[in-house]
Amino acid sequence: MGKVFKERTSVDKALRLFLERISTLRKAEEVSIETCTDRILAEAVVSERNVPHYRRAAMDGYAVRASDTLGASPANPVMLQLSDQIEEGGTIWVHTGAAVPEGADAVVMVEDTATVGTLVQIRAQVYPNRNIGQVGEDIKKGDRVFEEGHLLRPCDAAVLASLGFDRVKVFKNPVVAIIPTGDELVSRKESRDVPPPGKVLETNGLMSALYVEKWGGIPRCTEIVPDNPDSIKEAVEANLDADMILLSGGTSVGKRDHAPEVVTALGELLVHGIGVSPGKPAALGIVNNVPVVCLPGYPVAGLVVLYLFVRPGIRKLAAIPEAPELILKRRLAAKISSRIGYIGFVRVVLEDDKVRPLAGARSGILSSVAKADGYVLVPENIEGYAEGEEVDVFLIE
Amino acid sequence: MGKVFKERTSVDKALRLFLERISTLRKAEEVSIETCTDRILAEAVVSERNVPHYRRAAMDGYAVRASDTLGASPANPVMLQLSDQIEEGGTIWVHTGAAVPEGADAVVMVEDTATVGTLVQIRAQVYPNRNIGQVGEDIKKGDRVFEEGHLLRPCDAAVLASLGFDRVKVFKNPVVAIIPTGDELVSRKESRDVPPPGKVLETNGLMSALYVEKWGGIPRCTEIVPDNPDSIKEAVEANLDADMILLSGGTSVGKRDHAPEVVTALGELLVHGIGVSPGKPAALGIVNNVPVVCLPGYPVAGLVVLYLFVRPGIRKLAAIPEAPELILKRRLAAKISSRIGYIGFVRVVLEDDKVRPLAGARSGILSSVAKADGYVLVPENIEGYAEGEEVDVFLIE
Repeated sequence: MGKVFKERTSVDKALRLFLERISTLRKAEEVSIETCTDRILAEAVVSERNVPHYRRAAMDGYAVRASDTLGASPANPVMLQLSDQIEEGGTIWVHTGAAVPEGADAVVMVEDTATVGTLVQIRAQVYPNRNIGQVGEDIKKGDRVFEEGHLLRPCDAAVLASLGFDRVKVFKNPVVAIIPTGDELVSRKESRDVPPPGKVLETNGLMSALYVEKWGGIPRCTEIVPDNPDSIKEAVEANLDADMILLSGGTSVGKRDHAPEVVTALGELLVHGIGVSPGKPAALGIVNNVPVVCLPGYPVAGLVVLYLFVRPGIRKLAAIPEAPELILKRRLAAKISSRIGYIGFVRVVLEDDKVRPLAGARSGILSSVAKADGYVLVPENIEGYAEGEEVDVFLIE
Repeated sequence: MGKVFKERTSVDKALRLFLERISTLRKAEEVSIETCTDRILAEAVVSERNVPHYRRAAMDGYAVRASDTLGASPANPVMLQLSDQIEEGGTIWVHTGAAVPEGADAVVMVEDTATVGTLVQIRAQVYPNRNIGQVGEDIKKGDRVFEEGHLLRPCDAAVLASLGFDRVKVFKNPVVAIIPTGDELVSRKESRDVPPPGKVLETNGLMSALYVEKWGGIPRCTEIVPDNPDSIKEAVEANLDADMILLSGGTSVGKRDHAPEVVTALGELLVHGIGVSPGKPAALGIVNNVPVVCLPGYPVAGLVVLYLFVRPGIRKLAAIPEAPELILKRRLAAKISSRIGYIGFVRVVLEDDKVRPLAGARSGILSSVAKADGYVLVPENIEGYAEGEEVDVFLIE
């Protein structure tokens, strides 16, 4: 009792200490290209084909020998004979994408022609290869089409499909074990009735699982573990086959807070006490090379730690490439106060072309999350922002 | 032959004409809150409970009668007796989140106390209700927690769970029928070998399906339909139970382009020929109140039309709330040329803190999509952007 945090690590430093101990998994599996969206390529893709695989007409028009069109113009058209093979003075209709017939070396676009019976008036001179897509012009056999580590999008699936691929090797998604701890917790599976005073329905596990899934992990939720070190230890040990472990609750410095001490006992506690508000009691550690995040039990604090540490951790495990951060710039409809020494995670609501901080949004106040569209991070070294100041807004997804 | 587009509608106008004919579906279904992420609430959620449902200690500490702490200070502590019920001069330990015992009206935080045997030294005076969360302080029974139309996030699922909800009513996702058309197409299901000259593997259907899924629709792909008006008509009629129909291919003005005429025959063609490059041959229409998008067969042009028309169409059908657009601002590493009268959809690659337009990225060039990180839209009335100009970059997802 009366214990306080001995130290407080800045968010930046805590994140660095955490990420440098996380190794990208690089375990591969094969998936169908029908389900490859948002997966990461585990190997470069090299084309085994030419695209196009034949000389392709780039326009609707007439395939010709370019030499037959010499000097052709609207005033001085050349007449060619519609034919089924290309010889001197002959032409064949081709539509966009069709194979250019052998013997032809150019296509005259339909707009530069007219037909009179089986004669075609050519009203423009074309040079060899005009309006023809050459074999391999787009993608050549042997071309590296995608590098390892590429994040696959629907348009990439189409590229793979057109190269004849049906399955691709991608990195396995990291398994994230989620262990809710706390004597006060009641499982929603047992009863969704109002629990007795002092008891609450367990919901942080659900929130964590859904975020893990959204961010590219595979959540695995365990039963609720009571507030005692042996039970928590057992639960952690039982989940060391996972790629990351989230311990929810019991991370402060009270007498029922055992999560950080369990991490210390089983492995290495990297950080306990982080300069973010809410979220200060969070702890980060490593057990048997498995990153462990101790999430505060207060839902808003838990959300903060999910965003600040779990998301980047999953991205590193999963080899998700860094993407430029898209930030919304908005002016504040009211001032924000924040505590020096802590990054303030301030929930905000979009309001016309401004954002308004949610009043009275303490870390235990669940409804503040429901109401918030996003959050503003106030740096450690300032006391807040004035009304009207432009701030970076991160949308809560 | 020789037909050209009689008109060309601007992207803005085409989108307006299209969207004003689309009605939001508003068909509801119930889903488990375990799978409610990214769904849209079909009705407001009203809480049937108070949160907290009991007087909750907001701190680890000692529950007291505030009147017993009168005048307490570090220099002048008040001594209270550890007890199992609160009477004058008695106190009970409570941890954060615990029920405050009957008779107590405040909690003294542990940092302001010390224990000596069964005596507790109280070193700070507290006022009534100090460090106590009142019943319903967060959410009151009868409060509207979420409005109809709210997009559900993992944190919202947790809020719903804590209110005792297990299932929620959400809008059904729109079914989007995807009909690939073209005599040149070969189904990947039949053979993934290199097709004969003039034939290509069908892949636009797959790309469309994966984007539809990403954007909140339920894709339903049909077999490939040959280039003849009756077959296309039949395919459209067979899919009028869908909420949107995508016809891929056959949308230009060549002799094998029947998609727009089929739309005209069955319903109403709103737009044919749009001021965007690539993507100009796209057409938009309505058949039996079902929006129909004719996607050009060239993959890049198809992608453009998916982004510019299909995505907003799905969002309107599905009642997905408007979100502020997050735009990346970057300087150009090279100039962009664009055609007056058309919005230029220019594929770009991220390069350090700049973006570089992809050279030679014609609409038939599939590899340009694989290489592109995003796109820049050049307005209709300008010829391009100079090197070094700052542009808005949309990432291709």
